[in-house]
Amino acid sequence: LVRRAVTRILSPGTTLAANQLDAQRNHYLCALTLDKAGLHAAWLDLSTGEFRVATDARPENLLPVLTALDPAELILIEGDLERWKTAPHDQSAIHALHAFCEPRLCTDLPGYHFETAEGLRTVTTILGVLNLQGFGLAHDHPALGPAGALVHYATENLCAKPENLRSLQEYRSARTLLLDPATLRNLEIFQSSRGTRDGSLLSAINRTGTAAGARLLERWLAAPTLDLAEIQRRSALVGELLADPLHLGELREWLDNVRDIPRILGRLQNRLRNPRELGGIRDTLSQLPAIRATLSAFGPNSQLSSLNSQLEELPSLLQLLTSALADALPNDLADGNYIRAGHCPELDRLRSLTTDNKTWLSDLERGEQERTGIRSLKIKFTNNFGYYIEITKANLHLVPPDYIRRQTTVNGERYVTEDLRTKEKEIFHAEENALAREQALFAALVAAVLDESIALARTADTLAELDVLAGWSVLAREWDYCQPVLDEGDTLEIIEGRHPVVEQMLKDPAVAAGRGTTSFVPNDTLLSSTDAQLALITGPNMAGKSTYIRQVALITLLAQVGCWTPAKTCRVGLVDRIFSRVGASDDLARGNSTFMVEMNETANILNNATDRSLIILDEIGRGTSTYDGLSIAWAVVEHLHRDPERGPRTLFATHYQELTQLEKHLARLRNFSVAVKEWNDEIVFVRRVIPGAADRSYGIQVARLAGLPITVIDRAKVILQKLESDDTSVELPSAA
Amino acid sequence: LVRRAVTRILSPGTTLAANQLDAQRNHYLCALTLDKAGLHAAWLDLSTGEFRVATDARPENLLPVLTALDPAELILIEGDLERWKTAPHDQSAIHALHAFCEPRLCTDLPGYHFETAEGLRTVTTILGVLNLQGFGLAHDHPALGPAGALVHYATENLCAKPENLRSLQEYRSARTLLLDPATLRNLEIFQSSRGTRDGSLLSAINRTGTAAGARLLERWLAAPTLDLAEIQRRSALVGELLADPLHLGELREWLDNVRDIPRILGRLQNRLRNPRELGGIRDTLSQLPAIRATLSAFGPNSQLSSLNSQLEELPSLLQLLTSALADALPNDLADGNYIRAGHCPELDRLRSLTTDNKTWLSDLERGEQERTGIRSLKIKFTNNFGYYIEITKANLHLVPPDYIRRQTTVNGERYVTEDLRTKEKEIFHAEENALAREQALFAALVAAVLDESIALARTADTLAELDVLAGWSVLAREWDYCQPVLDEGDTLEIIEGRHPVVEQMLKDPAVAAGRGTTSFVPNDTLLSSTDAQLALITGPNMAGKSTYIRQVALITLLAQVGCWTPAKTCRVGLVDRIFSRVGASDDLARGNSTFMVEMNETANILNNATDRSLIILDEIGRGTSTYDGLSIAWAVVEHLHRDPERGPRTLFATHYQELTQLEKHLARLRNFSVAVKEWNDEIVFVRRVIPGAADRSYGIQVARLAGLPITVIDRAKVILQKLESDDTSVELPSAA
Repeated sequence: LVRRAVTRILSPGTTLAANQLDAQRNHYLCALTLDKAGLHAAWLDLSTGEFRVATDARPENLLPVLTALDPAELILIEGDLERWKTAPHDQSAIHALHAFCEPRLCTDLPGYHFETAEGLRTVTTILGVLNLQGFGLAHDHPALGPAGALVHYATENLCAKPENLRSLQEYRSARTLLLDPATLRNLEIFQSSRGTRDGSLLSAINRTGTAAGARLLERWLAAPTLDLAEIQRRSALVGELLADPLHLGELREWLDNVRDIPRILGRLQNRLRNPRELGGIRDTLSQLPAIRATLSAFGPNSQLSSLNSQLEELPSLLQLLTSALADALPNDLADGNYIRAGHCPELDRLRSLTTDNKTWLSDLERGEQERTGIRSLKIKFTNNFGYYIEITKANLHLVPPDYIRRQTTVNGERYVTEDLRTKEKEIFHAEENALAREQALFAALVAAVLDESIALARTADTLAELDVLAGWSVLAREWDYCQPVLDEGDTLEIIEGRHPVVEQMLKDPAVAAGRGTTSFVPNDTLLSSTDAQLALITGPNMAGKSTYIRQVALITLLAQVGCWTPAKTCRVGLVDRIFSRVGASDDLARGNSTFMVEMNETANILNNATDRSLIILDEIGRGTSTYDGLSIAWAVVEHLHRDPERGPRTLFATHYQELTQLEKHLARLRNFSVAVKEWNDEIVFVRRVIPGAADRSYGIQVARLAGLPITVIDRAKVILQKLESDDTSVELPSAA
Repeated sequence: LVRRAVTRILSPGTTLAANQLDAQRNHYLCALTLDKAGLHAAWLDLSTGEFRVATDARPENLLPVLTALDPAELILIEGDLERWKTAPHDQSAIHALHAFCEPRLCTDLPGYHFETAEGLRTVTTILGVLNLQGFGLAHDHPALGPAGALVHYATENLCAKPENLRSLQEYRSARTLLLDPATLRNLEIFQSSRGTRDGSLLSAINRTGTAAGARLLERWLAAPTLDLAEIQRRSALVGELLADPLHLGELREWLDNVRDIPRILGRLQNRLRNPRELGGIRDTLSQLPAIRATLSAFGPNSQLSSLNSQLEELPSLLQLLTSALADALPNDLADGNYIRAGHCPELDRLRSLTTDNKTWLSDLERGEQERTGIRSLKIKFTNNFGYYIEITKANLHLVPPDYIRRQTTVNGERYVTEDLRTKEKEIFHAEENALAREQALFAALVAAVLDESIALARTADTLAELDVLAGWSVLAREWDYCQPVLDEGDTLEIIEGRHPVVEQMLKDPAVAAGRGTTSFVPNDTLLSSTDAQLALITGPNMAGKSTYIRQVALITLLAQVGCWTPAKTCRVGLVDRIFSRVGASDDLARGNSTFMVEMNETANILNNATDRSLIILDEIGRGTSTYDGLSIAWAVVEHLHRDPERGPRTLFATHYQELTQLEKHLARLRNFSVAVKEWNDEIVFVRRVIPGAADRSYGIQVARLAGLPITVIDRAKVILQKLESDDTSVELPSAA
């Protein structure tokens, strides 16, 4: 009796048979879902173990990628294909998606296989990991649904778990330098580790004078471009501005008077309108001739002239607003008096009525004073009662009989006369008509502004850019920054680089007192994917290792946003991602220990770094036992160096002195250390990075500086001596 | 020729000669400054090296301490003594200070010796440290001025630096359990490490229903009392409330309607008055009979009866507010209509005038409709124009000749008549008088409330306390907390303790999915100053060491604020400070590396812990080289254990397995580990803390779980094997 069981179901997407596979190309199985958040896709090649997810709010961005993959089989939620086919025909993206799926083999699965939570479980199980942070993926990434369906389908068809799935990568478009949240936090780009803006890179390089400029700077930092021409354009503009400090100063003064046009336009478009906003448009437009003249002063060959040409002066709009709007403007439409006298004859006429009436009132007051002989007689006004004549108690006996008593107050009586009543009506009437007229004129002005909203928005964008660039010029002058050279090469060369934030902090007397110095010691860096790829930095605590490696990352980032850099010279071969793993914090509520967080971040780097990436790693392997940590750090170094030709440019700071021996085995690894002078058992930090490995860590001396009791320090020294004398210097296994 | 130089200047405060010193007592030199921030003092005993600073906003709090010290010599800013003597005589604190100084030897120094920045420099230099964080002192502590003057004076008089100054302690009053900022942050008391309230201890144990209750809870957590009777009182009250869920539920419902009396009183006192605030007083008072009845239901012997007796129902005030205030109250005094009809006959009369007038107006409207035959005729009102008759365009030909035209609108005309004008005046008059009357009545009500402000404030405080305690009862029931036993002993015994925050987090499906479980594994703890003083905890990463040691600190804190605790049973000998050193972060801008921060925090603990303190230390020595770190961790353990009899209760989690050997040498050290099951090179976390040392750290398995590439993992295993086979197990030097 032969027992028979299904051992494998063949489908075009899951076949592994060599004769069915074209060795030259990948052979993808792909799952897709579409929801309000966009198109979510997962694909895997069972033959190579390549496994990726992608998501995009706009299906049209993702479809070209999927088309290029040319998947052999698609996994869809049952009914989706039909739904897409019958979508309203203005939904062109859905129709494009349908057109992509239609000619291919599509397999339907029930919707519950595509649920995100289910996908997370399936995917972590198949990869044998606790969470997906090591792959840079959040636990609710919307493509986990399709990824789970994919794994489920593959498992069913193989009748076993696909064993070669080892990592999951997110596909991203390649147009910006990527900075993951851990790196933004570690490098203190937008806020310092204390959670304040102060102490961040953003605040250190922000010299903008306008709100729109500050926002643009934040956008540039959040998504640095990879477009070499654009970077060079910005950097060159900074140079031009910097070269003419006189006109730069002028330009910044003009920019100071520029108002927040994008926000004003937004409010006007959303019917939140007040006269002062219109004044903002007027005041900004009135700066433009001066700004354009100043820009022209940089010369006709200047790159600034192309920015200049994007500024639209809109002279007729300016003329209209200037002639129509009063100099001082109220915030509230109901306050009136925002239209300038002379702009509208009808309005002027209505206003003059009011003025005439006011004159009439003061004539009346004087006349009544004379007639009654009451010197303190006053004509007053309240909202509730209108105009009245106020007579104090002492003078009540002088009140003439034609006065009509309206109200008694503590100090006297209030009267009206028939004349006053009639005039009151006239005044109210005139005021109301004037206000209505003003509001109609205002509406016309708003319409005129909104007619030019495109030109205004473009002009505002250009002003914001000028603001950022002019700010950077000032920054470069203040702190002696150099213009970086950017190219498509694989080198990173910094001569006398400084940490842009720490350098500025040191000028703060309180900080300087803590560090005992006010000047920052510059250091050089030379990295290259193909030569000095991996700098291994050893040296004592507090000597400046962390500052040094972060400074390299920050300088690179600054260069790629187009800013100048705190260095003597700087050359940057474009970097596609900056990764960092520094510091340590745990996340107990989510069940992640310090070491787990550290390993998650490290895994994310190893899984996603390319040859064009820049990696800074600070003390990998701290959170576990000595040998475990050393083994992991060692394997990580080897992994980053694994390609015989090239690898990501990496700065690796470590206390594992054992790793310095790897220089013998790894061709592109270079040892560096941070110099220290020792003097009478005390250490002096020189803060110079020099070639070669450090010999000691000086941890105990630093502990002494931190205030540890002297008995503890002395005892630690004894223990250390004993440990070191016992040590039979470990010989390392050579690289595999 | 004999060269002579001054070698020492003798003064009573700086003498070190044995015959001048009473060995039974300290011999203090003390410096004082007084400024707007309060009294700042520094004192040192050159004979013992004791060196302390203290500051208090109220000099009267610090003077008893200084008096007890009985300093032999005082250092003051020149002229201060004279200034204090001639202070205005209502400044009793200054006079007390003068009385303290006057009989003593006072030495004047110029004011610049007392500057804080100068003091920081002098003190760090004399102590040989980089900053004062290791002593728990901020760089701008106001007592650094006097401390600097003290050191300066001592140096001058000794003609050399005093050499025995090794640490600086801040004197603090001993009435509350101290939690330094690092511990508040590390234990996530008020906010989680992500900076959110969610995930903090505060949010986990907050079940209050009122704002005043939530504020009281925060105050209790920020400064837990050391008063055993008070702690036991709170804890017993929680028990009583818990025992009667029916009445507890009732009580919480009543409390939900209690308004924020302290804030309302504050605003009323500061003339920010609106009718709705008074309604808040009324609504709260009206809950009191029900609250008191519910509290009485807990029985006459209940401790709740003493709280009950602090609640003052103030029936006559409630009666007044209820009869005087309308049900629905406006926010603005000018809106009127907040005084109830029937409360004041005069007000009712004024209001009825208005009502009568309104009736007159509607009669007029009907009459005019009939007289003119215009059906659409309406009597209307605007603020600017008062009452008018509106006639639409179509009916203008029907307008009678006695109508006076006041205004033309798009749709018609507005008229008045003489009658209408006269009535309008009457209406305005009546309304104004009514409003004035209401405001006077309101002022009287406010005065009546403020007359009872002391009773109201006391009642509000009691309500807030009831709110916190009732909330804790609900918490204890929800999560099965036990009532801790508190005593003056030196034991800390927890059976089946749980982490209060993590336990609740695990019920969140998203978190539970990440950890693969929803139930928290409880663990026991037994510490005692004189027996099992120091628990050394080893075990793999991710196994739960950090969670465990933090849970012990949190349970202790909960017990000391009077809350019940997440455990089966819990006994706490009062703790005077909780110290923690966990996680790692650097502070590059201030020039502090991760290791420096770690050492600062450790130094603070070693310098300030007493036998009654609770210390949790997580992986001391991580940020430096292996042997340096091990030596320091080792010396720290020995230091904490140094007294042969007793020491602070300590939980010490570490990856230095070498330290487990210390159990042989240190009598009160106990080894524990967190259990793990190994299965097919995978590890399963059991999360049980068991006696005995761990044998491995499983760092590489955890790295695998974190998603590190499999090639890296495999290579790390090879390296580890090699390292371990080379290792000639280090033999440790025995304790000094």
